[in-house]
Amino acid sequence: MALSNVTGAKCTICGRITPAEPETTTCPHCGGILDIEYDYDYIRSSIAKNPMNERNGRTMWRYMEFLPVEGIGERPRLRVGGSPLYRADALGSLLGIRDLWIKDDGQNPTASLKDRASAMAVVKAEEAGRMTIACSSTGNAASSLAGNAAAAGLSTYIFVPSRAPKGKVAQLMMFGATVILVEGSYEDTFRISAEAIDRWGWYNRNAAINPYLMEGKKTVSLEIAEQLSFKVPDYVAVSVGDGCTIGGVWKGFKDLYGAGLIDRLPRIISVQASGCCPINTAAAAGTMEWVPQEENTLADSIAVGVPRNPVKALRAIRESDGVVVNVSDEEIMEAMRLLGAHAGVFAEPAGAAGTAGLKKAVELGLIEKNASVVSIVTGNGLKDVNNAIRAAGEPMSIKPDMKLLLEAFAARGLDIS
Amino acid sequence: MALSNVTGAKCTICGRITPAEPETTTCPHCGGILDIEYDYDYIRSSIAKNPMNERNGRTMWRYMEFLPVEGIGERPRLRVGGSPLYRADALGSLLGIRDLWIKDDGQNPTASLKDRASAMAVVKAEEAGRMTIACSSTGNAASSLAGNAAAAGLSTYIFVPSRAPKGKVAQLMMFGATVILVEGSYEDTFRISAEAIDRWGWYNRNAAINPYLMEGKKTVSLEIAEQLSFKVPDYVAVSVGDGCTIGGVWKGFKDLYGAGLIDRLPRIISVQASGCCPINTAAAAGTMEWVPQEENTLADSIAVGVPRNPVKALRAIRESDGVVVNVSDEEIMEAMRLLGAHAGVFAEPAGAAGTAGLKKAVELGLIEKNASVVSIVTGNGLKDVNNAIRAAGEPMSIKPDMKLLLEAFAARGLDIS
Repeated sequence: MALSNVTGAKCTICGRITPAEPETTTCPHCGGILDIEYDYDYIRSSIAKNPMNERNGRTMWRYMEFLPVEGIGERPRLRVGGSPLYRADALGSLLGIRDLWIKDDGQNPTASLKDRASAMAVVKAEEAGRMTIACSSTGNAASSLAGNAAAAGLSTYIFVPSRAPKGKVAQLMMFGATVILVEGSYEDTFRISAEAIDRWGWYNRNAAINPYLMEGKKTVSLEIAEQLSFKVPDYVAVSVGDGCTIGGVWKGFKDLYGAGLIDRLPRIISVQASGCCPINTAAAAGTMEWVPQEENTLADSIAVGVPRNPVKALRAIRESDGVVVNVSDEEIMEAMRLLGAHAGVFAEPAGAAGTAGLKKAVELGLIEKNASVVSIVTGNGLKDVNNAIRAAGEPMSIKPDMKLLLEAFAARGLDIS
Repeated sequence: MALSNVTGAKCTICGRITPAEPETTTCPHCGGILDIEYDYDYIRSSIAKNPMNERNGRTMWRYMEFLPVEGIGERPRLRVGGSPLYRADALGSLLGIRDLWIKDDGQNPTASLKDRASAMAVVKAEEAGRMTIACSSTGNAASSLAGNAAAAGLSTYIFVPSRAPKGKVAQLMMFGATVILVEGSYEDTFRISAEAIDRWGWYNRNAAINPYLMEGKKTVSLEIAEQLSFKVPDYVAVSVGDGCTIGGVWKGFKDLYGAGLIDRLPRIISVQASGCCPINTAAAAGTMEWVPQEENTLADSIAVGVPRNPVKALRAIRESDGVVVNVSDEEIMEAMRLLGAHAGVFAEPAGAAGTAGLKKAVELGLIEKNASVVSIVTGNGLKDVNNAIRAAGEPMSIKPDMKLLLEAFAARGLDIS
């Protein structure tokens, strides 16, 4: 089945074009990661016939002509996408940013941006006639796959590094997935999952192998643009692990630009943890040659020492004239507190890292103070309660007695009028 | 400021009517809980001028003429409401229900239905000119208040029983609330919070005192009705703790009926935990006289031995010709697994209790198999990871080696083709 809007899958390494089939993974010539390419004239005419502001659905499937599917079939789907974009003046003035917006993608069915990729994976697996999907993941890709597959009635095998927070593991267990905790690094986990996928012929949801997943992720940018009435912000800040999310964010804006819906492109602020920043290190050095690193950060979702999609990430930074910033765990926890207290958004560490990087970029003079910025929160803080507790501190605790309450307030220096 | 759509606040005990002011709490005559009453002719004509299907916003404020506010002011708001209603055929056929729908209210900004009440509380506090709000809560009301207040720039003082899951406490700490853990029961917590509220004159978000909060909660029913094209289901299942949520659910349908948007009312399935079911016990005995109970259930959000809103809850059950069902913790955990694996919805224990009760009601022959039912999931499973782990069991764990993987699969009896 050829898609009317897709022209093919272009290799990010050798540049050769492959037909885009449901089971297409990496380049058959050189093994490089593929990029789905679109017929922008087709998209333009489709939108002319059916303008965005006349559409009803608020999910990611609202942007059907930008997506590598003909439809989403008859199976039940979770409501993925349509997450809120909050204007955050209070936080913006604290950070020294004129126009700050928070895209809260923790407001997705399984509480992370990864739902956009997993929803796509489930539809493509069905197109390929497969009823079992597998992946390796630091956690969010896993739970999103498990949840989206469960809704549709598909089975999942999921490989997770044993360091993943218990909340993430419990979530995917509840979705009925067969879960394999791997006692090793993310790299080890990825390898054993790839072996098992080969052996049993499961549909592969590893985002760096399957080119369709980034197409799901890019819908976050389509939404941001539409929520801003297609007025593009100067910057979009996002945290970076494997490289697929930043790749998807950039692809979304490029496709919008290609189809003529926006008239300029944002600069991407690529934020990694100081303790694990192979992509930013390479980008800062102006090279595509990245070097593996240790995984020393509390932000487990971006603790990826051997990124699987460095090419797309590095290109997103280079092509967008991007900004790279690395942040410490302390800076991440501070951003969690700022997002919570001044925007009402509870982010997991990796989810807050983009905002931490934005704050630091302003402080370092890397971006202008009168800039307009969208900071993407990629996952909900409930996913990693231990680090939330670590960031938030302990509450006061008293027996139910007014005298003790007054003492506790006084001890904390709270003077209440 | 008199509201055009509100006629007054009627006492649920003595029946006298009080003007509905922003700070109105209980009945000035007898101390009874008040019920906001509307001018249904006004609502009807307002909707005739501006039909539902021509409205854009998808939040709870979409139903403005049904709400006791003139508007929501200029302060930033979280996106509350507009949660998905999933058709759940797979789960329905497992439970033996013809038409089953899951209303996933865990998909709210702070991951529970309570956001609807807290968003209302923040707006009413602003109307009353107060910039500090306080409440006591088993957890969800607290975090929703903290999040919604943080977005709007208001301060919060929150009293939480010390047994509340850490995730819930961490969430509200992150929102910048001043949190007081109370070493005692929910009753103790409620009492000390009331004392503090009196002393410092904070705006009171205790749902059983403040009549506006139930008006926020009722929007879940307005949404359900609209999502079903105003075709009312035979039953709506919901878990019951304090009694405010079931009261709100019923009020929503009654207001819709009063305004002529629906032509019949659903029967409410009131679900409590067997270990803490004072409201259902009274309802089953056909009396309004409830008796305090111990709080013996893992479903912390409905572990309320001394319900604060028994009158509205008992009336909802009686007026709707409701069904009462109590469920064990085992049955709640089973419902968590069923919702996750067959609908892709991850619920906290109290969030799954409604579905557990529905399952049991079918098994006991309390409701017909060809019924149409909406089961409300009131909170997200990420809020209470410990109980999710307890319900889900532990995953298999291996070193990264195919031989060990094969052994682990074999040990679990997994035969993969």
